[in-house]
Amino acid sequence: MIDINKAIEALDWNKEPKGLYEPIAYTLASGGKRLRPTLALIAADAIVNGGLLNGDAIEQTLPAALALEIFHNFTLLHDDVMDKAPVRRGRETVHVKWNDNTAILSGDQMLIEAYKQLAKVPANKLPQVLNWFNEMATAICEGQQYDMDFEHMSQVSVDAYLQMIEKKTSVLLAYAMRIGGYIAGATPAQQDALYNYGLHIGMAFQIQDDILDVYGDPATFGKTIGGDICSNKKTILLISALETADAETKAELLQWLMTTDRNDQKVAEVTKLYNQLGVRQTCEAVMEEHTAQALAQLDKLPQNEAIEHLRELAELLATRKS
Amino acid sequence: MIDINKAIEALDWNKEPKGLYEPIAYTLASGGKRLRPTLALIAADAIVNGGLLNGDAIEQTLPAALALEIFHNFTLLHDDVMDKAPVRRGRETVHVKWNDNTAILSGDQMLIEAYKQLAKVPANKLPQVLNWFNEMATAICEGQQYDMDFEHMSQVSVDAYLQMIEKKTSVLLAYAMRIGGYIAGATPAQQDALYNYGLHIGMAFQIQDDILDVYGDPATFGKTIGGDICSNKKTILLISALETADAETKAELLQWLMTTDRNDQKVAEVTKLYNQLGVRQTCEAVMEEHTAQALAQLDKLPQNEAIEHLRELAELLATRKS
Repeated sequence: MIDINKAIEALDWNKEPKGLYEPIAYTLASGGKRLRPTLALIAADAIVNGGLLNGDAIEQTLPAALALEIFHNFTLLHDDVMDKAPVRRGRETVHVKWNDNTAILSGDQMLIEAYKQLAKVPANKLPQVLNWFNEMATAICEGQQYDMDFEHMSQVSVDAYLQMIEKKTSVLLAYAMRIGGYIAGATPAQQDALYNYGLHIGMAFQIQDDILDVYGDPATFGKTIGGDICSNKKTILLISALETADAETKAELLQWLMTTDRNDQKVAEVTKLYNQLGVRQTCEAVMEEHTAQALAQLDKLPQNEAIEHLRELAELLATRKS
Repeated sequence: MIDINKAIEALDWNKEPKGLYEPIAYTLASGGKRLRPTLALIAADAIVNGGLLNGDAIEQTLPAALALEIFHNFTLLHDDVMDKAPVRRGRETVHVKWNDNTAILSGDQMLIEAYKQLAKVPANKLPQVLNWFNEMATAICEGQQYDMDFEHMSQVSVDAYLQMIEKKTSVLLAYAMRIGGYIAGATPAQQDALYNYGLHIGMAFQIQDDILDVYGDPATFGKTIGGDICSNKKTILLISALETADAETKAELLQWLMTTDRNDQKVAEVTKLYNQLGVRQTCEAVMEEHTAQALAQLDKLPQNEAIEHLRELAELLATRKS
């Protein structure tokens, strides 16, 4: 059975110059859920009728799965420079442990390493996979740009927000599914179902992320509750609240956004306004709709153990507490 | 006849989000010699017997040529962030005109755009071209890392320096030639000759660059003479001087390296030491050897007008004054 963690560990970064490759090894060794390569492998598995990650079709999917994981970690590396984030997965970020230049250059090399893995895709499938991968990578850069643009905009619509997270988060999961399925021989209709499953669980995942920041259980959440509120992050909760509030409530909310001291009170008061406006329910409804859409895709695919895994995953993401 | 400048102008960057694509348009519109795509096209032309950049073989080379130019400009964009360079080709660099984050993200997108062009290479040649392109891109990141490492090293050998510029500069020219020739149907032996031609003109070009910084004619050079001396840049002249000087001369040279005021005097005195040591002649000999090697490759190829162009180019690079 293919073990994605072992496959990542087996990548050799003990190369010169050390200054280029050590930060790559460090980044890829920092764990994470390995969600994207796992999705690619399960998608392939679903198409070859739930071989439990065994067999040639799965072997053939592995380089693309690795490309997706290396690419994802490249985006985190460069995003952390742009966001000046000090910590990632409990460890110092590369630009802190080394410096900005190292993070830029080793990040560039990671993007190239992703394409090196991609070059191992069977030749007859390479042109299509390369096109999809490029489309996915473009969407993510566009999503990151929109995310940065939103920081400086006074008003962002829920639709614009959903388009942004689709590009920044969901498209990568969607193409992981499509590419995995395609390499394993999925029909175009099956590819679409796999793609849409990935897209919808991505949306549900990101919306749940926003909800947990406010309504998560401090005992299980892992991060400080209300971090997004303190930093005025334009989450779907804040955007929904601003879109639906009457003039008086909106003024009160905006007043709190301008408050930069008294963080505890800010979190409590903004949460109270969210409660009055019912934004949790609004956002949960959007999230549940995406989960339902994701699950509906699975009915279009051959039913086997891999599909069962995907069903559980969609339900898990929607009910997760951390 | 294929016009590379027109092909670059025809690329459409009028897309959303503007913050991502405008810096790409700005970078690609800033001119430059278009040396790399031109080499790819001439290499193809040489193989199809000097069709003066006409015909299907040349058309098929165009996407790879564009990929090479976009990739080259991506490296300049990120290098300028790392070097904190304020000006490129007479215009503000992207990180100055916009900011560091824009330069990082638009640079990332340019790298992806290079691969988008590459995906248009004929499917039967794509796997090989993608592998070579990845190898080339890796060499350039490694070369940039060595270049940054050298800044902090007290001693660098001439050999290490030559390996660094081979990776950072020459390999891109070499693969431009190989990829252009390969797409046009070059035999493996012809590909090797094209590759080695590119490699050697790249070496000659970079060494001449170092020489001109000291011995260029201020009237034609365009940059300030002695800029590398002022910044203690480890050029082949400085490295050769340190390698060949006796203890007394070396001490005098090191003394001047530690001098950060009196730049005019520093340039004059270091140049005098270079003259005593004959480093200009040493470096010119290395450069001329590379030019000779480049020219020798051309004898292995079908003789036609394209080869004549390449011969002239190699001689021009070796005798250029700016």
